[in-house]
Formats: sequence, C-alpha cells, structure tokens
Amino acid sequence: MSIFGSTGTIGVNTLKVLKNSDIQIECLAANKNYELLNEQIQEYKPKLVFANKDILHLIKHKEAYDINELERHFASLKSDGIVNAIVAFAGLKLSLLTQKYNKKLYLANKESLLVAGKFLDTSKISPIDSEHSALAALLRSVAYPKKITITASGGAFFKQEDCKNLKAKDALKHPNWQMGAKITIDSATMANKLFELVEAKHLYKDLELDALIEPSSLIHAFCECKNNSITAYFSVPDMKLSIANALFKEDSKAHCNALDLLKIKNLSLYEIDEKKYPIYSLKNELLKNLDLGVIINAANEVYVEKYLKDECGYYDIYYAIMKALDKFCTCKIDTIEDVFTIDNKVRGFLNG
Amino acid sequence: MSIFGSTGTIGVNTLKVLKNSDIQIECLAANKNYELLNEQIQEYKPKLVFANKDILHLIKHKEAYDINELERHFASLKSDGIVNAIVAFAGLKLSLLTQKYNKKLYLANKESLLVAGKFLDTSKISPIDSEHSALAALLRSVAYPKKITITASGGAFFKQEDCKNLKAKDALKHPNWQMGAKITIDSATMANKLFELVEAKHLYKDLELDALIEPSSLIHAFCECKNNSITAYFSVPDMKLSIANALFKEDSKAHCNALDLLKIKNLSLYEIDEKKYPIYSLKNELLKNLDLGVIINAANEVYVEKYLKDECGYYDIYYAIMKALDKFCTCKIDTIEDVFTIDNKVRGFLNG
Repeated sequence: MSIFGSTGTIGVNTLKVLKNSDIQIECLAANKNYELLNEQIQEYKPKLVFANKDILHLIKHKEAYDINELERHFASLKSDGIVNAIVAFAGLKLSLLTQKYNKKLYLANKESLLVAGKFLDTSKISPIDSEHSALAALLRSVAYPKKITITASGGAFFKQEDCKNLKAKDALKHPNWQMGAKITIDSATMANKLFELVEAKHLYKDLELDALIEPSSLIHAFCECKNNSITAYFSVPDMKLSIANALFKEDSKAHCNALDLLKIKNLSLYEIDEKKYPIYSLKNELLKNLDLGVIINAANEVYVEKYLKDECGYYDIYYAIMKALDKFCTCKIDTIEDVFTIDNKVRGFLNG
Repeated sequence: MSIFGSTGTIGVNTLKVLKNSDIQIECLAANKNYELLNEQIQEYKPKLVFANKDILHLIKHKEAYDINELERHFASLKSDGIVNAIVAFAGLKLSLLTQKYNKKLYLANKESLLVAGKFLDTSKISPIDSEHSALAALLRSVAYPKKITITASGGAFFKQEDCKNLKAKDALKHPNWQMGAKITIDSATMANKLFELVEAKHLYKDLELDALIEPSSLIHAFCECKNNSITAYFSVPDMKLSIANALFKEDSKAHCNALDLLKIKNLSLYEIDEKKYPIYSLKNELLKNLDLGVIINAANEVYVEKYLKDECGYYDIYYAIMKALDKFCTCKIDTIEDVFTIDNKVRGFLNG
C-alpha cells in the first residue's frame, strides 16, 4: 500500500488503521509537514518517499523524491493499492496515474471525481469518505435501492443566523470532525456536500441523490429502497471506520469506539438552506452537467484560499464561482487535458 | 398460501399485500369475525375455510370446518407457506403442524417461539414482525454482526408517570400501530418486547440482544457490527412492509408509504424503565432460561384477559407472572407435551 498525503488527517488515520494489519507500507508522500513525515518514515519504514521540493532536503530517507516527479517513479511502485489523500485539485494526477497503472484507488481526494469523474473507472475506486463508505456498505446490502441521501453536519455555521461577517477562523472550529483547513471551509459553505453528491453521482449512477443536515454526525448516509424501507448507517464520527471500510470492506475489527444508542437524543434532519449555503444551490445544475465541476472547483479553491487568508468574505466564494461559471460554462470538456486547461484558465481569470 | 387469523390486523394486511401478487390463497381461517371472513371468502375464493365452531353455521363456503379439526385436514393442504397470525398460545398448534408437514412458516404469532422455540426449526421460519423482519433485512446484509437492538414505541403508557390506575381502555389507544387488543396490552406492559427478545434469541442465536424505546416507531431495529458501525431499519409504521419482507424477502414493490426523512425530528432513544414496565425486568432471567417462557406466557394471557375485562389492575399482570414463576419455575420442559401440560397447569393455578 502507498499513502499519498500521509501527514494529513486521512493519512494519519490510514496509518493507524494499517498498523493493526499485515499490509506493508511501500511509499509515503507529504507536502510540507516534514517533521511528521520523518516520524512516519522511522515507524513504517517505507521504501520510497515523496515530498514537496521545498522540504526534500529535510527528509531522512535515502529514496526521497520531489512529488512533482511522481510520474517518473510511479511505474516502479509495487503496491496494489494507492491511498489518495492529497488535498484539492493537486490530487487528480495521482488518481489518473493510479488508474493508468491499474492499481486500486482508495480515494479521499474529492476533487478527482468532481473534476474528472468521467475519465475515471469508478469500478476500481473505493471511496474513503464517511458518507460514501457508509453508502457503499448500505448499497452492498439492499436489493432495490432507489435513492441515497448523505448527511451533512451543517458545518461550523449551522447555528449562525447570518454568515456574512464570519471569518475563516470561525469556520475552522468544526463541531464534529477533525479535518484539514480546506475541507473544513468547504464543510462550512456546504461546497463539500455538493462535491460529495457529484462523487455519489459518478459512483452510483442511476440512483436519486439528496443531502440533508444531521447535526450530530451520527448518521452518515441513508439508502431508500423501492419497497419504501430506509436503511441508515450510524457510527461515532471517526474517519478510521471509513478508512477501514474502504480498505477492507467487511471488517471484524473495531477501528473506532462503539456508539451508545442511548446517546441518540433529539436527532433531527434538516434541509440545506440555500440562502445560508448558496454554493449548494448549484446542485441541480451541476448534477445535470457534471463538466461544470471543473469550473466550480477551481473557483472554489482560489477563493477558499483567499478566505483562509482573510482576503475575502464568506459569500465571496459563491460570487466567484458564479462569475467563473458565467465566463466559462460553455467550455467543452472532451479530454482529460481540457480539465487541466480549463482549471488553469479559471484560476488565471480569478487571480488575474 | 394459507392464512390463519385472516380477519385480524396481520391477516387483513397480508391479504392486501398478496392482492398485488400472483400467489393463490388456498385457505383462510378466523376465530369470530364471520362477517369479514365471508367478505374475504367472496373476494379471495379460498378452497378451504376454518373457523371457530360457534360461527361455523354462518360461514358461506362449502368447505368450512371447525378450526379444532385442523389437524385432520392439514395433510390435504397444498400451500407451501402458512401465515400464522393466530393470537396467543392457540397459535402454537398451527406452527407445529406447519413444520410437521415441512411447510414454510410465516410467523406473526409470537407465542410459538416464546413457549416452544426449542421445538421449532427456525431455519424454516420467516418472522412477520416489524422488528424481526427489519432485523432479518439488516442481518442479511452485514458481515460481522455483534448485537441486535429492537425498538419499542413505549406503548400507550410511555408518557404516564404512574400506571397503577390505568385501565385497559386507556392502553387500547396505541400511539403508532393499529393492532389487536391482546398485543396492544402486551405493548403497554412491554411484555410484547420481552417476548420479541425471546423470539430474536431463537432466530439469531449467538448475538447480543437489547431493546430500547423509540417513541416515533420510525426505527424498527438496529444491528451493531464488530467494526462498531450500526445499521438501522427505518420505515413508516405499517405492517404491510413487514409482511412483504417476510413473504418476499427482497421486494421491489412499495407496500407502504415512503418515509419523508425530514419528518425525523427530535428522535430519541430511551432505556425501558423496569419500574414502569416490571414485566420487562424478567429479561435476563428469561433469556438465560427460555423454558420460563411457557409459564410467563400463560400467566400473562390469563391476566391480560382479566385486565381487558377490568377485573385486575396494570401491575397485577406482573404479580400474577411472579406468582406463577414462584410455583412452577422448577418444572422441566423436555417434550412438546410438557409445554401444553405446564401451560394448562399455570392457567388452572391462576384461574382456580
């Protein structure tokens, strides 16, 4: 197994899950956190390491390479499975390489399916999301699924009346999940849930899709069947379960704490308010035309970065997406190269 | 298919479910409600009818027999499946006959497993309970189940502080389910839930068992797996789904209305209070020694009948069970005849 993004939340938890297995770690890769990467190297003894060029000289490993040269080394990897926990658009290249070399893709990087779902073979993807791994478990077990519903915690701003003046530092206090900065902002704006619906659309093609807010994050997904029964997947919010589900499918080991059912008190489901979360209002348009994912993602990435630096307000992320859609929505995406070209154009347009 | 107890809630709903299928109704049987039975005869044209001797002369069918002579006619039944929706201990004989003639038993009668589970082949039983059919669906789909939890609505007295002076007529207003009088009282006292745990113990031998109150009756069962995930089975409270699940397993038809997930508001789970529901306090003792089911059931039946006639109070049902246990708990049940003997002794003791 090779783990890309090993120092992020998913990476760290993946290593915890694998610690109790007999799976060998062939390769680790990280972007900036050389201290943690060096610790992981010592503990897991990978044969190969990739890192951002800037920190390469600090990595204590004989075979440590620039992550930008990944393609050159990828053919020599023996791992059957690749965990892609790289953050944002930068993770797409790894997903493409993984499939090119016919390896199993354990996918935590949401942007791969969001921007290039139609160029990926979803039958060789095992999603590492609390929502999608829950869906995968539910769908393995029902005969006539009709509709799937994923849940959202509501993010950091669920209880706020008006988000206008809320800053990134407010969003970074997520109530239930420990995650990286980018995804925590995406969770506060509900962009994250929008992207997960696109992933679900690629993974489970013919099913109706919806998302609802479940503030306690104890239910991760619902599957409604044609007989009008609904099964739901509950657990404490702990990514280790989702990771184990993705890696091992049916697993007899406990990778997270048990959920005490008596802790379920006043559990309620809510619609996602499109005034508070305007990015989510793009749902129908995006699900009808999945190619728009490239534009929406690029604009979102540019403005989430600005928001994290306090250079723009909460609603500006949405306005930037709308501006980019206005400019680029007629662009056609016929090849994977188009994905990179349009992504680049949108970034140039909004940064320029 | 043959349906015994065709004029009760389960019987009526079973016929509704079968109406949309191509399954033929060979035999109908009812106890007292000759008017409805005659209507059913006209609509479903069974070849054979059984009824209580007292109403036999009112039944409009050439081949209508006394239900007490069932055994004599049973060999001639061609049905592969028997729906046993007879109320209380009286249903046991039909379960035994069904298995003797190697037919599939669709079991709504709770007392069969409660008093004689060890004499029945559970691999040939498909339970028609909202809880057990939900469990069956959940258990078909998970790899490493650990614990199953069935839910109770809390019955008619859930919101009552003190049940001491509550009468049967108060209990008969069940908040969520339309059911017969006996089972509605058993639901108010939680005897019903105790009995369902015994059924679950017979059906799913090696799993931990629990029951919790979920007042909205939208969740029917939970299955906790070794990986600490929990799947839950939701639906509107409608027996037609449970019946269809029992009859068809995986079904693509909607036999009940869809459940709007946004209707889930303030859903909470509660422990079953053994002060309010003292019969439930027998859980551990009964699950450890399933033979006690015969005594508990007989005493419960005798006193629920008294309670329905306003001849005793709410807690007297529990006291009667304790009295019967005190007297008979050392009796051994080695043969099916012992079941009938002890049942008879308990009734004589409490009625005498």
